[in-house]
Amino acid sequence: MLYIIGLGLGDEKDITLRGLEAVKKCVRVYMEAYTSLLSFGLSSDGLSTLESFYGKPIIIADREMVEEKADQILSEARYSDVAFLVVGDPFGATTHTDLVVRAKQLGVDVKVIHNASVMNAIGICGLQLYRYGETVSIPFFMDNWRPDSFYEKIQRNRAVGLHTLCLLDIRVKEPSWESLSRGKKKYEPPRYMTISTAIEQLLEVEQGRGGSVYDENTECVGFARLGSEDQTIVAGTMKQLLNVDFGAPLHCLVITGNTHPLEEEMLDFYRVKAETVNGNDHGNA
Amino acid sequence: MLYIIGLGLGDEKDITLRGLEAVKKCVRVYMEAYTSLLSFGLSSDGLSTLESFYGKPIIIADREMVEEKADQILSEARYSDVAFLVVGDPFGATTHTDLVVRAKQLGVDVKVIHNASVMNAIGICGLQLYRYGETVSIPFFMDNWRPDSFYEKIQRNRAVGLHTLCLLDIRVKEPSWESLSRGKKKYEPPRYMTISTAIEQLLEVEQGRGGSVYDENTECVGFARLGSEDQTIVAGTMKQLLNVDFGAPLHCLVITGNTHPLEEEMLDFYRVKAETVNGNDHGNA
Repeated sequence: MLYIIGLGLGDEKDITLRGLEAVKKCVRVYMEAYTSLLSFGLSSDGLSTLESFYGKPIIIADREMVEEKADQILSEARYSDVAFLVVGDPFGATTHTDLVVRAKQLGVDVKVIHNASVMNAIGICGLQLYRYGETVSIPFFMDNWRPDSFYEKIQRNRAVGLHTLCLLDIRVKEPSWESLSRGKKKYEPPRYMTISTAIEQLLEVEQGRGGSVYDENTECVGFARLGSEDQTIVAGTMKQLLNVDFGAPLHCLVITGNTHPLEEEMLDFYRVKAETVNGNDHGNA
Repeated sequence: MLYIIGLGLGDEKDITLRGLEAVKKCVRVYMEAYTSLLSFGLSSDGLSTLESFYGKPIIIADREMVEEKADQILSEARYSDVAFLVVGDPFGATTHTDLVVRAKQLGVDVKVIHNASVMNAIGICGLQLYRYGETVSIPFFMDNWRPDSFYEKIQRNRAVGLHTLCLLDIRVKEPSWESLSRGKKKYEPPRYMTISTAIEQLLEVEQGRGGSVYDENTECVGFARLGSEDQTIVAGTMKQLLNVDFGAPLHCLVITGNTHPLEEEMLDFYRVKAETVNGNDHGNA
């Protein structure tokens, strides 16, 4: 059996009892590295904390490994219980559909253990989840590569008053251009887009496209480390949020659509205050 | 401190370790009754199972109680730790924003402990969560009250190829019309909309409105008891799903938009089979 287990958004205590039970009976435990190294502070220290918490070793599986060694993982899962741990929910912002499809094709049983993901935890800011339109991704702009297909999507959402969740780019274990050209893989240091960068890019695209979809006075909500003990949530205009220090990643951003009075009342608790700009924490809702 | 704790979608084992820790230290534990009575099989038996699991009594709080006794709950939370348990995620399909707003206004600290909700757990069918448009609710049609505002929303989603999550009506502890007219509250038995009823209503509205937004050949995915051990997930056309016996509630329905090849591959595992019509289970993904 292949157990795909969501770990939730905070730390080792956000696993469900069902998930922990499954981990405990698995003979091998893989952990998706894409966001986990960050979210769980998985320096070698963090990893050993988690290993002693589970009482067994964890194999960190980066994307390359999942792609290259999927057959090995799946053949282990055919005859024994194997866990694949995923930050958030297994089918949240990043997806593990491919691994599930390959498992099913090989006749390996799969069991999914759900958990919170960014997609539902953003509900904490008070904007109703059923009032969101399509989710967009904001990629890091490069000198000659500035993809802005998110613009039309935000436009469509705002045209009918819907909120937009913007997922911000994460670059982990990206081979450097230089190393690729030399035929030997070396990796760039990891990069996580901040809310400031996202807003700068959004405003740049608006200026270029000129569709008046949003501007620096558009109300947004910024989230950092959502679901963890030190999460920061601040509501304000794009211009205001540009100057807020949200601290360590991961960040995400919601562009508000039309709001109802109850949504406004809740947002009021998160509105930008002078001291936030110096990095003070807003704590949990 | 008021802890608002998501219980996830299955049974008592779907609470997170963080959530269980919080419940254990609370002096009083309320549980939202709106969907919980059903999801957790909380007949008096189920309730006592949960109570012995937590090692303390649980006060079932229906909507009336939450509205009428919010002040009492909050004043308890001002001087001691109080838990308010919610099926799914606290800000999932149903919302507890109002309670949080009142707490904050009274200066009561609130801590939210997230969990899986229908909004992210539907990812298990393989349709990517970022390819969904606005979520719609399908209310029970009555003789002279057939609200169909969901139609335009589905139309907008499908016009740009997005999937639509349809949340199906739940009527728990609704005062009967008869009792209201007599000035003495008596309650209707609980009703949970099935996928068949939802599809019948959807097709009726399409026939009346004639916008060719969808028809009986439109591909959908039906979910029953999502996230629980005996969940059933079946993909097929509206016409096919009309004849599938999904069993006990809760049900929800996804109307697919344009699908990518990987989404199709995953849906293939759930496609309607002859035997499903007789109520056989599809198990977990």
